[in-house]
Amino acid sequence: MALYSTADLLFCFAHCLFSLLSPSIPLSSPPPSGLHIMAEHLSQSELDYPFKLLEYFNGFRVSKVIFSACELGVFDLLLLSQKPLSAERVAQELGASVDGIERLLDVLVGVNILEVEQIDGTACYSSTDVANLYLAKGSAKSLHDMIIYQSQTIYPLWNNMVHAVREGKNQNEKTFGISPEDIFQTIYRSEEEMLKFMGLMNSTWVLDGHDIVTAFNLSCFQAMVDLGGCSGALARELSKAYPSSSVTVLDLPKIIQAARQHFTEQDDTIVFQEGDFFDGDIPPADLYILARILHDWKEEKCVQLLKKIHACCQPGGGVLLVEALLFENHRGPVMAQIFSLNMLVQTEGKEHPPSQYSSMLSFAGFHNVQVCRTGKSYDAILAIK
Amino acid sequence: MALYSTADLLFCFAHCLFSLLSPSIPLSSPPPSGLHIMAEHLSQSELDYPFKLLEYFNGFRVSKVIFSACELGVFDLLLLSQKPLSAERVAQELGASVDGIERLLDVLVGVNILEVEQIDGTACYSSTDVANLYLAKGSAKSLHDMIIYQSQTIYPLWNNMVHAVREGKNQNEKTFGISPEDIFQTIYRSEEEMLKFMGLMNSTWVLDGHDIVTAFNLSCFQAMVDLGGCSGALARELSKAYPSSSVTVLDLPKIIQAARQHFTEQDDTIVFQEGDFFDGDIPPADLYILARILHDWKEEKCVQLLKKIHACCQPGGGVLLVEALLFENHRGPVMAQIFSLNMLVQTEGKEHPPSQYSSMLSFAGFHNVQVCRTGKSYDAILAIK
Repeated sequence: MALYSTADLLFCFAHCLFSLLSPSIPLSSPPPSGLHIMAEHLSQSELDYPFKLLEYFNGFRVSKVIFSACELGVFDLLLLSQKPLSAERVAQELGASVDGIERLLDVLVGVNILEVEQIDGTACYSSTDVANLYLAKGSAKSLHDMIIYQSQTIYPLWNNMVHAVREGKNQNEKTFGISPEDIFQTIYRSEEEMLKFMGLMNSTWVLDGHDIVTAFNLSCFQAMVDLGGCSGALARELSKAYPSSSVTVLDLPKIIQAARQHFTEQDDTIVFQEGDFFDGDIPPADLYILARILHDWKEEKCVQLLKKIHACCQPGGGVLLVEALLFENHRGPVMAQIFSLNMLVQTEGKEHPPSQYSSMLSFAGFHNVQVCRTGKSYDAILAIK
Repeated sequence: MALYSTADLLFCFAHCLFSLLSPSIPLSSPPPSGLHIMAEHLSQSELDYPFKLLEYFNGFRVSKVIFSACELGVFDLLLLSQKPLSAERVAQELGASVDGIERLLDVLVGVNILEVEQIDGTACYSSTDVANLYLAKGSAKSLHDMIIYQSQTIYPLWNNMVHAVREGKNQNEKTFGISPEDIFQTIYRSEEEMLKFMGLMNSTWVLDGHDIVTAFNLSCFQAMVDLGGCSGALARELSKAYPSSSVTVLDLPKIIQAARQHFTEQDDTIVFQEGDFFDGDIPPADLYILARILHDWKEEKCVQLLKKIHACCQPGGGVLLVEALLFENHRGPVMAQIFSLNMLVQTEGKEHPPSQYSSMLSFAGFHNVQVCRTGKSYDAILAIK
């Protein structure tokens, strides 16, 4: 924060406050009740017996039950089969042990992700609409790739959270044995890991992209560039919502090549362009999108990037930030708080409340900062040059 | 199950059914609502946005937030300080980074385990009654040791759940690099690990022991022996509830020595005895307790052990099994289902429904099988010689 003078900060704060209070702005959706399920009040009865605490302790096991079923292909098989299957049949089809599959399926029934019925004296399992929609691989809203990344990369990283909190830095070295200067050299440390990360990003925007691109009316922006747009999933949502705008994804050459090879769709209306928004040129545009970019980096680097974008931006153009926004008092939402710890263990950045982004944007020369909380995992901030 | 003839099984089943239906038996407590929190129905609205699924995916991160705070000593410090502390002060006291501690404390506030207030413009954190009671190390009902074991041993084991389900066997070799024939050679692979495991058992019975030993009126049993009684925590609850009975803990010599050194209490009324209930002699007694023993082993080995106990048991004596009981249809409780998967990844055993234990007990010669579900994590089954 050494970049800012006191006067700057006061200006930014006042500016942001104004933006936050302006009635013309879709300030926030109704209380995001779903996100608060995890924050149920620990009532006095918890002192008699810690049911809720024990549930928290068991959280990692419930996660791994779902993740493991996903990795084994349980949900794909049940969707394909179109009829209830016995544990024996599931095990046979997936090349797994009957005993292990039976125990796994039973927990999934226990948490209402699968259903079971007796057919001729045998327990037969079938999928639910929710599992078919989100957990099967091929579905339109599949979170399969998000799960794979969480299970295989994030879960082991979090096993070093104690070290991350002690040292105040990411645990790539302790977890994966490598720690190059650039965190993305770790994230993209192999073709396989790079594709997994792209899958994570892709499924995130397949889920949240529509809410994000419609948080504000962006139809006035003709040329849009998604900086670090990865697989193009968010760009596709932009293109769908604003068909008269052009949408370009700019990302590192190897990402663009992989996006073209693995993630393009028939009749894709978006354009992929190789580049490096830190070290290379940024193409001129009316709207730049930075979706889950700023949270990877220290504030100084974020402000430098925003200044560079400001210089390229057409007059009247703007920048759309997409991040999980903390409350100003940092007391929630839980999801954003958890993401901020995730940034600690994996990157150089953190999650911020809106005022922090407003400060950075104002300092880089943007104004009219508008904040929209979607009530889901990611929120949007729009600012104008 | 090859040990049983069809006639045996029919007899056991009928016998068990009778026991289950007998009105004189405290069959089960009211529906254990707390245990079902995790099994909230995935409603149709989940199809609009998967709030509950995302909460499940994040379960491992919430677990690790609590575990890490516990390992770092956050709850002990806040209990000791008796006043709210800033993140800077907590970091200083614990030798950790301010940034990391701040993010960690904020999530704990988000899940209502800590509280925060502004004092002279600084966020200051304090503990809740629930955290003081269960998460601080020295408290009477501390789950600290349970957390350490879950965080450092169970969490990495579950990272290999996919392999466990595929192979149908524990993942000690893949996780810890060793796989001796006896699973307890892995669990006790070092003095440190042995003590951690003893801590887990100890905190389990500090929490659940009283409910277990009062599930039935055991005052008619004079000499009680807790086989594999580890730190003696359950034995202590027995001794408190039945002061006129003698209570002996029988366990392997190294366990008894560690129990005497680390877990004895002043005015301990229980007796520690070195032994091996599989390979050595079992002392005569009126009541044998097997708490979380049978779930470690295959059914054949369990029946052998029960037969051996039956032979030593005084006439009119009995055996008390303590386990997490599955419903007969295996559809819950979620906690027991999860424990059964845990047994897959760590041991040779599994969790069972009451009928399975009744069968084993009857086959070993016990009768009058009575089942008591406590509605908490562990249940009790009493059978008479």
